[in-house]
Amino acid sequence: MTIESTLTTFRERLGEVMDLHQAASVLHWDQEVFMPPKGAAARGRQLATLSAVAHRYFTREEMGRLLDELTEAADQLDPDDAKLVEVTRYDYERETKLPEAFVQAFALAQSAAYEAWVKARETDSFATFQPHLEKILDLLHEKADYLGYEGSSYNALLEEYERGMTVETLRGLFDVVAERQSALVEKIVNAPDPPDLAWTRGPWDEDAQWTMTLRLLQDMGYDFEAGRQDRSVHPFTTSFGARDVRLTNRVSPDDLFSALHGAAHEGGHGLYEQGFQEKDGRTPLADGISLGVHESQSRMWENMIGRSLPFWEHYAPVLRDLHPGRLDGITPQQFYQAVNHVQPSLIRVEADECTYNLHVILRFEIEVALMEGEIAVAEIPEAWNAKMKQYLGLDVPSDAQGCLQDIHWSHGSLGYFPTYALGNLYAAQLFEKILEDLPGLWDDVRAANFAPLLGWLRENVHRHGRRKTAVELIRDITGRPPAPGPYLTYLEEKYGRLYGLSGG
Amino acid sequence: MTIESTLTTFRERLGEVMDLHQAASVLHWDQEVFMPPKGAAARGRQLATLSAVAHRYFTREEMGRLLDELTEAADQLDPDDAKLVEVTRYDYERETKLPEAFVQAFALAQSAAYEAWVKARETDSFATFQPHLEKILDLLHEKADYLGYEGSSYNALLEEYERGMTVETLRGLFDVVAERQSALVEKIVNAPDPPDLAWTRGPWDEDAQWTMTLRLLQDMGYDFEAGRQDRSVHPFTTSFGARDVRLTNRVSPDDLFSALHGAAHEGGHGLYEQGFQEKDGRTPLADGISLGVHESQSRMWENMIGRSLPFWEHYAPVLRDLHPGRLDGITPQQFYQAVNHVQPSLIRVEADECTYNLHVILRFEIEVALMEGEIAVAEIPEAWNAKMKQYLGLDVPSDAQGCLQDIHWSHGSLGYFPTYALGNLYAAQLFEKILEDLPGLWDDVRAANFAPLLGWLRENVHRHGRRKTAVELIRDITGRPPAPGPYLTYLEEKYGRLYGLSGG
Repeated sequence: MTIESTLTTFRERLGEVMDLHQAASVLHWDQEVFMPPKGAAARGRQLATLSAVAHRYFTREEMGRLLDELTEAADQLDPDDAKLVEVTRYDYERETKLPEAFVQAFALAQSAAYEAWVKARETDSFATFQPHLEKILDLLHEKADYLGYEGSSYNALLEEYERGMTVETLRGLFDVVAERQSALVEKIVNAPDPPDLAWTRGPWDEDAQWTMTLRLLQDMGYDFEAGRQDRSVHPFTTSFGARDVRLTNRVSPDDLFSALHGAAHEGGHGLYEQGFQEKDGRTPLADGISLGVHESQSRMWENMIGRSLPFWEHYAPVLRDLHPGRLDGITPQQFYQAVNHVQPSLIRVEADECTYNLHVILRFEIEVALMEGEIAVAEIPEAWNAKMKQYLGLDVPSDAQGCLQDIHWSHGSLGYFPTYALGNLYAAQLFEKILEDLPGLWDDVRAANFAPLLGWLRENVHRHGRRKTAVELIRDITGRPPAPGPYLTYLEEKYGRLYGLSGG
Repeated sequence: MTIESTLTTFRERLGEVMDLHQAASVLHWDQEVFMPPKGAAARGRQLATLSAVAHRYFTREEMGRLLDELTEAADQLDPDDAKLVEVTRYDYERETKLPEAFVQAFALAQSAAYEAWVKARETDSFATFQPHLEKILDLLHEKADYLGYEGSSYNALLEEYERGMTVETLRGLFDVVAERQSALVEKIVNAPDPPDLAWTRGPWDEDAQWTMTLRLLQDMGYDFEAGRQDRSVHPFTTSFGARDVRLTNRVSPDDLFSALHGAAHEGGHGLYEQGFQEKDGRTPLADGISLGVHESQSRMWENMIGRSLPFWEHYAPVLRDLHPGRLDGITPQQFYQAVNHVQPSLIRVEADECTYNLHVILRFEIEVALMEGEIAVAEIPEAWNAKMKQYLGLDVPSDAQGCLQDIHWSHGSLGYFPTYALGNLYAAQLFEKILEDLPGLWDDVRAANFAPLLGWLRENVHRHGRRKTAVELIRDITGRPPAPGPYLTYLEEKYGRLYGLSGG
């Protein structure tokens, strides 16, 4: 076979696997958005079969042989094809390392742990969840051994969400973040004259809120010919190819801003997915680099843009029009204060920009300690509560509002949480460069002209798909590896001004 | 292997194939209902892959071996398992008869023919479509040879939609139908005093119409916990297992009745699908017997029930409430007249109950003549127009409104049309028996109490799934094979009264 025909066969086989994954994504989307309740059992079986078939197709011997041939002939490939082979080989090696029996055992443990977690949270009983989490932890050690790692076994788990990231690197970033964000939060909590937010009290018309989300997405440059926004219990973004990217959102009559910021956040994810190149479709190159980089896109739109004063200079009158008689006389500055209100709280998903990373770092530290055997599962509540006191100054009244609040551990997704905080750090570091490259950015935002920003992101981030690692991307753009400085500076300046704090 | 373990393996392998088909159905549904336009290309690839993978999984050697073993041991199987093996073997043999190269060539010809047909219809140019239909016809002959048949090659095509049906049987049914329905239509057209339908003129509120469809489906017994109704350009029903059955519908402001009857029709299909047994899920037994039997369910609810006077005695006031001030003083009898208005027209999908079968028979006769070489593709327009004159007394002003109106031939679906007329015949024959078994039926309908009817259908039709053929089903229930008499009697009596025609 010539190298061209090997490549053609390789792309065709790989394309089938991608088609199967995309099909599964359609089924997942429908499950969250439209599926009637009694459809759940059959849907579970359909998804299990799709995932098993995709796994079998991807890990066939033929795929290994094709990858071997193409890797050997890498110098004859053009850079795009060489990159595709490299990325696919990386995925292939990870996927073939886990025996099917282990994958099944893990799936069973996940289901059981999820059910136990739901019950444990409802009844505020950590003991109900504990044996399941212990089982998950055993399996995660087994998984780490199958996958291999250097240093901490936690690195094997991190790799799944943030290729190349290590505990050592994260500690270097997060220790600084924890210290300076804790200090900032303490200052804010003790600041005099908190803003009066009585005007934000609901109820707020739901249709008007939905209209606002659609308008914002349109303004951001989200292509509704290549996507749509629907309602779901938990907002998320998924895609079935770069020309069919679905967002979901929710509307609460009690909260004027949650749907709006949900749209900015999911819209950020969605713009990333819509920005992959047509020619990368049906290959693993058309995907986000890592969860951290994906999150950098959503956080940038949600926070750096959607919680900026220029943004509200444009959208304050828009909201006034959408809620007639309800927002008269409320200034852009008041909106700006309201959407940036800082209030340490127990629940991560309700956390503001200043406290969010602290919730994440707390989880990261517990996860590493669990994997490294420094604490036992039974000790989680105690560790959790101590850290909440340390970082946020809060007493945790119940495990339901503490260590049982998140779904992630019941899924066995240890290593996932850090990517949320990385997203914030990446976003700020990129944004610093964006402000240098686009000196008129704030004027553009004030005019809801997001085309220059989107153009910059398309050119520097989106179009590369998975051609770079997160570290390469950040370094290529900013000249430095990921660092905590830009985010901390951004926070300290913004909130220092907002809360009238004395310098740094 | 014991027979039990063979059966377990067989069910597991078959279950995967069913899961893949159900997954494809989800993708099809989304494509018609929610998919953004730019998603089409990727969706086509996803569906092609799912269908290829399902085909490969189903036609694997292992499946053949399992079927052989189970067929040999059929006397050790319980009746349900024996039936499952028989039905699966039937499907397996048909599916393995077509070489993959042929299936691909056919798919390519379909795509090309479909595109040509769209253009041909837009430009009213049969010549644009002709070479593509000729190609399709060649391939259909090839297909018939692969599949095998007795008598007419058209029988091989019919088999796909209506197992066991033959040209000979259809001619026996349709010749009588054509003659008596033509005669009935002629009488109606010449009847004095057509009803005044000015009150039906729109526009009609779309939300109120949608509300009406939901209410009707609820009344019919459609389970919204196991299904939903969404909007699409062309109404259809699909299912992803018997506990997730999706209906679609459309609403036109110009037409007070089309959405309502669309819901009755699709609801009839949907109730059939929801009525399969839980234990048949993930097997081919949980499916309609044939398109004709499926259509009997939709037509019965749409026409026998939804176009009956007792139905309108209940729903006339409901519609009055939904459209305040618009329908005051309109009696149930007037609704009954309006929904049964007969008007020969050129377009099949707009045809009323009296003329519908004539549209179908015309197509059937042309299809058989094409397959048997009695006419050439080039002669279709002439044959079409002559038959429209003969059966409906109409001159066809253009091929766009004549032989180019339907999508079916561009898909190569010759043999499909007759099932529409069979559905009407089956429905009437079953309904005759239903009226015997349920003497209080019209009182129940008058009270919108459809539980007795649904109960009868569940017991006698739905729960069997594919355990019987259409002929067996009709004979087991009515004591006779399918016959045209009941439908013609139903039509002649109903429309004789409605239009004050003299007997017979």
